[in-house]
Amino acid sequence: MKPSPALLSLVLSGACAAPGSRLASWSPDAARPVIDFVSRVTDPASHDFVPAPERIAVFDNDGTLWAEQPLYFQLLFALDWMREHADEHPEWRSDPAYRAALEGDMGALAATGKEGILRVVLSSHAGTSPEDFAAAVAAWLETARHPTTHRPYIEMVYAPMLELLDYLRAHDFKTFIVSGGGVTFMRVFAEDVYGIPLEQVIGSSLATAFENGEEGPAIRRLPRIEFIDDEEGKPLGIHRFIGRRPIAAFGNSDGDHEMLQWTAAGDGARLCALVHHTDAEREWSYDRNSSIGRLDEALEEARTEGWWVIDIARDWARVFAWEGTEATAP
Amino acid sequence: MKPSPALLSLVLSGACAAPGSRLASWSPDAARPVIDFVSRVTDPASHDFVPAPERIAVFDNDGTLWAEQPLYFQLLFALDWMREHADEHPEWRSDPAYRAALEGDMGALAATGKEGILRVVLSSHAGTSPEDFAAAVAAWLETARHPTTHRPYIEMVYAPMLELLDYLRAHDFKTFIVSGGGVTFMRVFAEDVYGIPLEQVIGSSLATAFENGEEGPAIRRLPRIEFIDDEEGKPLGIHRFIGRRPIAAFGNSDGDHEMLQWTAAGDGARLCALVHHTDAEREWSYDRNSSIGRLDEALEEARTEGWWVIDIARDWARVFAWEGTEATAP
Repeated sequence: MKPSPALLSLVLSGACAAPGSRLASWSPDAARPVIDFVSRVTDPASHDFVPAPERIAVFDNDGTLWAEQPLYFQLLFALDWMREHADEHPEWRSDPAYRAALEGDMGALAATGKEGILRVVLSSHAGTSPEDFAAAVAAWLETARHPTTHRPYIEMVYAPMLELLDYLRAHDFKTFIVSGGGVTFMRVFAEDVYGIPLEQVIGSSLATAFENGEEGPAIRRLPRIEFIDDEEGKPLGIHRFIGRRPIAAFGNSDGDHEMLQWTAAGDGARLCALVHHTDAEREWSYDRNSSIGRLDEALEEARTEGWWVIDIARDWARVFAWEGTEATAP
Repeated sequence: MKPSPALLSLVLSGACAAPGSRLASWSPDAARPVIDFVSRVTDPASHDFVPAPERIAVFDNDGTLWAEQPLYFQLLFALDWMREHADEHPEWRSDPAYRAALEGDMGALAATGKEGILRVVLSSHAGTSPEDFAAAVAAWLETARHPTTHRPYIEMVYAPMLELLDYLRAHDFKTFIVSGGGVTFMRVFAEDVYGIPLEQVIGSSLATAFENGEEGPAIRRLPRIEFIDDEEGKPLGIHRFIGRRPIAAFGNSDGDHEMLQWTAAGDGARLCALVHHTDAEREWSYDRNSSIGRLDEALEEARTEGWWVIDIARDWARVFAWEGTEATAP
């Protein structure tokens, strides 16, 4: 019997889900590593029991919680924003990274490296107040569409990872984002989309200045990167913002390698996981040779150390929440 | 009838407290400003209602949550530590701030300014791992005694402020420390003493480095100050760590002035408060002329703007939890 669209929609929304089907977007048994880990660290009789305040789980964002192809979404936002404001900034033309961005020459932009990309992403918005910047991001998220799926960007989040976040929180984990993305960008949607409050979002940031002028006290963003929350910046950011070593860490690229190493090196039970993009059909397939989300050394170490490698093609029954919904649309 | 010591101890511990006496260490009606504020922002029918995730309250530590006389407690810790380790660091003798600290010349140390004091406090411990540093702090808190009260330092916290923290949290406020003190120092006791989790403690910090050597991945503290969480650093730190403007802020010195200004300048109901040290009998009495916790311009603005000035002598029925317990000791 084919289920009715209404019933299907109920099932998809989780309204009918039995407690055991919380991780419903995962293939049968694919979520076993997290289920086993959670049962060990939450059982007071277990040797691996961890008190609730120490149940810290950290998540990379781009490529781990939402997609990152064909380009980091914040870069797509920055490009849209730059095109709108290029006339006000003739100086952009003299910087190779900015010029490449404005000309849409993604190869030349990628050639400036992560640093060049980050500089474009972060400093194109320097001078704005955090409030104005957040408003610009919110407006863009509302109207912009992903270049290949034509979905709003906040629909490009991974349904299995949303379930995993909920599952961990239901077991008294505190969930954090630890991402190379801009912290002010991510804070615009983290609470609504991931259920992660603003103060649990760690990311790259611009320097800021406090001013108390005619319009009263205000914070202004400066054209200078203060912190890059990538590679070794991730354990350092965790130390600075959280002050406690996580017991679970999720990433998808070599930029997450040090975060996973540092998490793994703590005492007691640990869960270190990599999302491996293996599904060219439903999502994208890339690792070693991708300039976005390159995954090479961390994947090697995952195999040596027995970290959990989440193979999207094999392990996720559903990648995005809207998958299959087109068929039932009127 | 004189209450028995056992009954008195029950009352002091709050076990007998009725719900209405949660703020039992406050003089009658002295806590009215916070009670009124909380009732306005938590009543869904009120024009000033604030949703729970936005109920952010920030607290300075030294002089606001615990005492800071005759010197910041972290400075007393650093001085003890330096005396123990002076032989290993002959270079300290050539720095005026270090030399003053080692010689116990507090006048000369104070003359190096807040920057000199902070440098001594923070960088005397550079090179240690955060774990070793935290262990040294924990051992010191266990054994060291305050020079005039001869109490362990963690008993030098203000009972009325502990009650206020609990009261706000009972109304779904999230409480943060935002202090010029070292973040790694405060995180050692914030959870046990204040009920504030590590990740809600914002403070000054040293630069750090991530190393993955023979002993595995580790973080090391460098001899360089990364962030001074004082004056304009406070709103900037709040922006960086919390990402949301507080609706309530508590301080006691001019170092808290910008934090209170920035809090006050937000839309909607705000509670800005200064603890004014007016009680030379039970605590200390100081403001404009103190090199520790100097309070001048912020007090002026509090009076102009109608901020809540908590007068310790008048408003606190009990300053420390142990007050009066000596009399009943056997």
